[in-house]
Amino acid sequence: MARITIIGTGAMGTAIGGVLAEGGNDVEHIRHSEVGTAPVTGEIVVLAVPYPALAEIAETYAGQLAGRTVVDISNPLDFETFDSLVVPADGSAAAELQARLPESHVVKAFNTTFAATLGAKEVGGLPTTVLVAGDAAAAKEALAAAVRAGGLTALDAGPLSRARELEAVGFLQLTLAVGELVPWTGGFAVAR
Amino acid sequence: MARITIIGTGAMGTAIGGVLAEGGNDVEHIRHSEVGTAPVTGEIVVLAVPYPALAEIAETYAGQLAGRTVVDISNPLDFETFDSLVVPADGSAAAELQARLPESHVVKAFNTTFAATLGAKEVGGLPTTVLVAGDAAAAKEALAAAVRAGGLTALDAGPLSRARELEAVGFLQLTLAVGELVPWTGGFAVAR
Repeated sequence: MARITIIGTGAMGTAIGGVLAEGGNDVEHIRHSEVGTAPVTGEIVVLAVPYPALAEIAETYAGQLAGRTVVDISNPLDFETFDSLVVPADGSAAAELQARLPESHVVKAFNTTFAATLGAKEVGGLPTTVLVAGDAAAAKEALAAAVRAGGLTALDAGPLSRARELEAVGFLQLTLAVGELVPWTGGFAVAR
Repeated sequence: MARITIIGTGAMGTAIGGVLAEGGNDVEHIRHSEVGTAPVTGEIVVLAVPYPALAEIAETYAGQLAGRTVVDISNPLDFETFDSLVVPADGSAAAELQARLPESHVVKAFNTTFAATLGAKEVGGLPTTVLVAGDAAAAKEALAAAVRAGGLTALDAGPLSRARELEAVGFLQLTLAVGELVPWTGGFAVAR
């Protein structure tokens, strides 16, 4: 399977790493504190860090990330108000990252799945579904295959421009969870 | 229960009317061809018409809709490309409608639930959930109560500005259905 580097060891990085390792992928983690000293070796690199950390990581690793699939999982919310996104309305965190890393294949994924639903592999009795958007078909398919090997469903959500909509879904889902209208073990499921 | 006027007798208008009538609400339909001649009498008025028809309906009924709850269910997509919305990126069809009807209480709802999931009252085994956004708390609550009486779940998705995110969800869900990645009987469910 794939060799995968995950930058970030928080709840999402740990959950994503667990799923991908279970799928037989070769997973290594880089702690946020190791950024800049640890080399990136995976063909797929998951940036499991909060949105504000993306710019520095992109700058630090731009050279090493060239030619690789880079996965943006961020939800770029204003976490003080929970009432808006902090990226341009017609753009996305993923589009910004692609602009910073023009030689990488940026893919948006995992921003609509709470960490608990990755570990449980189900949401409300339905298989946890990872929605994947990106412009590079091979990069999307490689990530989707790694996700499926780990026992989750992966769906092609379209081009990288659709990250705008994925980030809207993530934003809405976070507001519902913070408002205690859905639990952190639930949220949006995909019925097929 | 509530007196509800539904403008539009397509799949969505019929499905919404069915659910609300089952809940004991007093439901009347106005055909699209009767717009301008039939009076609006409901305290809640559901505009179950495609996005391009909203402007004319708002103009025709602005006076009669004053003081009433007006429900926008539209998904303002470019239906030729299925690749973009036709409203401003930082706005929504619902915000546009509110601007056209400043004396009405505009609520966004039903744009994330396919017609079949309203009739079936379930999506993938989970209760069909109507996400309701709006600035007038009483208007939102009246619609939510009418929906719940019909056997569905209704959740307060926040202020009318959150219609931007609801329309993003609707857009994404439509692209998945048109791409045959989810069936028209499925799509996004809410796990609680």
